[in-house]
Amino acid sequence: MEDVVIRTLEKVTLRDPILVEGLPGVGNVGKLAADYLREQLPAKPLATIYSKFFPPQVYVGEDGIIRLVSNDLYYWKAPTSGPHDLLVLGGDYQGISPEGQYEITERVLDYCSGLGVHEVYTLAGFAQGRVVEQPRVLGAATVAAHVEALKRYGVVFSRNDPGGGLIGASGLFLGLGRLFGMEGACLMGETSGYFVDPRSAEAVLKVLGRVLGIEIDFTALEAKAKEIDRIAQKIHEAEQRTGEPTPTPGSTPREDLGYIG
Amino acid sequence: MEDVVIRTLEKVTLRDPILVEGLPGVGNVGKLAADYLREQLPAKPLATIYSKFFPPQVYVGEDGIIRLVSNDLYYWKAPTSGPHDLLVLGGDYQGISPEGQYEITERVLDYCSGLGVHEVYTLAGFAQGRVVEQPRVLGAATVAAHVEALKRYGVVFSRNDPGGGLIGASGLFLGLGRLFGMEGACLMGETSGYFVDPRSAEAVLKVLGRVLGIEIDFTALEAKAKEIDRIAQKIHEAEQRTGEPTPTPGSTPREDLGYIG
Amino acid sequence: MEDVVIRTLEKVTLRDPILVEGLPGVGNVGKLAADYLREQLPAKPLATIYSKFFPPQVYVGEDGIIRLVSNDLYYWKAPTSGPHDLLVLGGDYQGISPEGQYEITERVLDYCSGLGVHEVYTLAGFAQGRVVEQPRVLGAATVAAHVEALKRYGVVFSRNDPGGGLIGASGLFLGLGRLFGMEGACLMGETSGYFVDPRSAEAVLKVLGRVLGIEIDFTALEAKAKEIDRIAQKIHEAEQRTGEPTPTPGSTPREDLGYIG
Amino acid sequence: MEDVVIRTLEKVTLRDPILVEGLPGVGNVGKLAADYLREQLPAKPLATIYSKFFPPQVYVGEDGIIRLVSNDLYYWKAPTSGPHDLLVLGGDYQGISPEGQYEITERVLDYCSGLGVHEVYTLAGFAQGRVVEQPRVLGAATVAAHVEALKRYGVVFSRNDPGGGLIGASGLFLGLGRLFGMEGACLMGETSGYFVDPRSAEAVLKVLGRVLGIEIDFTALEAKAKEIDRIAQKIHEAEQRTGEPTPTPGSTPREDLGYIG
Repeated sequence: MEDVVIRTLEKVTLRDPILVEGLPGVGNVGKLAADYLREQLPAKPLATIYSKFFPPQVYVGEDGIIRLVSNDLYYWKAPTSGPHDLLVLGGDYQGISPEGQYEITERVLDYCSGLGVHEVYTLAGFAQGRVVEQPRVLGAATVAAHVEALKRYGVVFSRNDPGGGLIGASGLFLGLGRLFGMEGACLMGETSGYFVDPRSAEAVLKVLGRVLGIEIDFTALEAKAKEIDRIAQKIHEAEQRTGEPTPTPGSTPREDLGYIG
Repeated sequence: MEDVVIRTLEKVTLRDPILVEGLPGVGNVGKLAADYLREQLPAKPLATIYSKFFPPQVYVGEDGIIRLVSNDLYYWKAPTSGPHDLLVLGGDYQGISPEGQYEITERVLDYCSGLGVHEVYTLAGFAQGRVVEQPRVLGAATVAAHVEALKRYGVVFSRNDPGGGLIGASGLFLGLGRLFGMEGACLMGETSGYFVDPRSAEAVLKVLGRVLGIEIDFTALEAKAKEIDRIAQKIHEAEQRTGEPTPTPGSTPREDLGYIG
Repeated sequence: MEDVVIRTLEKVTLRDPILVEGLPGVGNVGKLAADYLREQLPAKPLATIYSKFFPPQVYVGEDGIIRLVSNDLYYWKAPTSGPHDLLVLGGDYQGISPEGQYEITERVLDYCSGLGVHEVYTLAGFAQGRVVEQPRVLGAATVAAHVEALKRYGVVFSRNDPGGGLIGASGLFLGLGRLFGMEGACLMGETSGYFVDPRSAEAVLKVLGRVLGIEIDFTALEAKAKEIDRIAQKIHEAEQRTGEPTPTPGSTPREDLGYIG
Repeated sequence: MEDVVIRTLEKVTLRDPILVEGLPGVGNVGKLAADYLREQLPAKPLATIYSKFFPPQVYVGEDGIIRLVSNDLYYWKAPTSGPHDLLVLGGDYQGISPEGQYEITERVLDYCSGLGVHEVYTLAGFAQGRVVEQPRVLGAATVAAHVEALKRYGVVFSRNDPGGGLIGASGLFLGLGRLFGMEGACLMGETSGYFVDPRSAEAVLKVLGRVLGIEIDFTALEAKAKEIDRIAQKIHEAEQRTGEPTPTPGSTPREDLGYIG
């Protein structure tokens, strides 16, 4: 079996497309943002990516229909006034081994390069280990021009964060992307790291929308954020009653919140 | 060495064959069911599957003869009135790494595709974490038509189960099978998850027999179920005497029961 | 890099050669036996086997010279009266992953097949978890004819041992060997499993010598066995004084004894 | 994706070049030494080495610019009087799996062989598990001639150290190097193993400088050593006050010191 299998669902010709990546990770910020962007545009299915570096798993829908775990590429054609069509990459998992991460990223980049991609934005969460009321968006980029451009949109470039660099798809799509002649940046929404964080995803998408010149309606994402707030509040109250402590830095994510996505 | 080595034992031409898969897993339900089906038909050896993704192990028979661990494909020719011949896949192990699961499944599907397979049934156990007196058979399928058909045979399609999807061969043969143009379903017998469960295997096989229009004599399987009951009862009594608790959800399987197969 | 690199040191033509394998394992019985056989024959270096499935390690000799870890194949030309030349395989490690075990074994078998090997004997230890005064030699074979032949040399074929089969090179050389048209047997010397066991190696070699019609002088091996006895006795006495228990089944091997080889 | 990707940054012709390797490891001695050598020569970038056997990670510089983790090869042209140009290999990581270590080493050696390398020096730390005031330099070599030559430079060849051989790149570049017709030696600076040790790196580089006939100014490295001393002293004093013990053999490295490099 090929390490990575990409099934094209529709043949399309795109105009100088930009790739936006958002896969599961810290606070699921990247995945929430990419999925929401795709729904709002709306973007259409372009290709399905299977790999032996994903878990050997199928999901079962409420209708009883199974679906093999995958990453998925969607496309959006910009109105005639816009200079760039978009590709949005989302999915169920990142590769589950280091080699797998490299293999999958390299194959998807190669595929996107064939579609004409020269620019990549990766979306991710940045775990602060504490509740973040007003998430900032941290940045990292492949070239100084992107750093300067993103600063103008309020993106924070910190001397110290992220200290250990970026691990996983959000870093690799940029690092390997350069070998394909692509430039780009990672937008990291601050998040506690304890649960799925739509508010951080919104902060990230607001920057991305401005960068790409795209209007995004955030009503549904804000509703989801409020739902998470409500659940977090209930848990907090229950803990107050039982005397169990609220989450502190370094504690593990809450399963009950972690699966709201 | 090739990742997966398939040795054909007999060249056969099959009439629109259906593949039935049952490998070791939860409660060994799938393996028990597939092995029993193979013996009852009876099916004949068609091919042996070796792989570096199985453990580096040989079994030694009571006669002192060794045998390399494998998966094994059997065939059964339906009477002239029947529309479908059968292929039954059993074996000692599933692939022991995620990549191995993908590689083995893909190669076996490719081989079965060459034999004309367009339909797959995978057999498995579904761990309930509690003793199940009357195991139901849960289902998941690749297309709505199969869901509807199976409901008529009493298969339960639950909104919530299995919540995390199917992990391992039973899911992968369906998920990857679609890439080979195959449709099918997974039949999951409810089981405690604590020990090998012939009763659950019987429930699964009863559905499969109806689906395939095959008469199966369950006498021997019921005898095995009673033997397990007797051993479980003895253990329970011993625990009552010693005050050690009976199995509860989440506890590990009993080794002493686990090897009765 | 190739998965397995075999460097031929000398081009030889062998007369119907038999392969004897003995790599590190339980009680180091197989390795001790194969190394001793090689020295006594004496056998000459034929090929060095390197692999990325061994640890990334070099050994440093007392002269300060490094040597990359390897497996090593030696040959011995039988006197003109003898029907079979011999190949003896020893080495520093077995492959450190399941895939690696398969890959290395398959490549070495392929190489040996090219040298004309049709028969294989693998040497190993069988851990009894208790001190064994008079180690028996247990057997497992690829065909009934070998079972019968070995019984005549006092090899024990037990209904129950080894219950879980053979794991590692000693099983794999036989199991995969069949795919190369080779037949053979595994000779397992009983051993405690707590330390390196030259006495068990001697028991195994005595059988092998009879099977192959080769005279072996055991003086040096018996001296080594006595040295191990002496050390074991000292440890036992020290424990008697300190009240620390002597080894019992299931305890870990003694490092101090484990490295005497 | 290729297992190892080597991007040549400049085409150069080198005169009988010698390879010096120093990657992260015990006390970071090898990496400190190789990086310092490269800066002092100074050597110029020749090639960047990426691999799926490194972690899927990018580093973010203080300017916000990302960089994919890599190994890096530099070259230095000797003055016309000197017989050997130099290649210096440094980097962020060694391969993170055994196979990865072999694959990366083999590819880099193959590349260096193409540049005309016949001699290799690998630099490493040797953990003593205790504070080492005056680090000696231990050696291991591929041939007796190198052993004798290095002894004249004060390198210690010990009967017992390193007992278990060398694990990782410093051993592998020599062990696999022989398959490319290269000879060489490993220079191991004694170090506690508790923290990054510039003093040990200096000891190693002093030997290497004499071997290669290169003058090296150690001012900056000695300043770094004093900085580490100062920090270690502060920690020691703090522990004296709190009663927490100072590092003893077998304890884990200090994170606070470990990241000063």
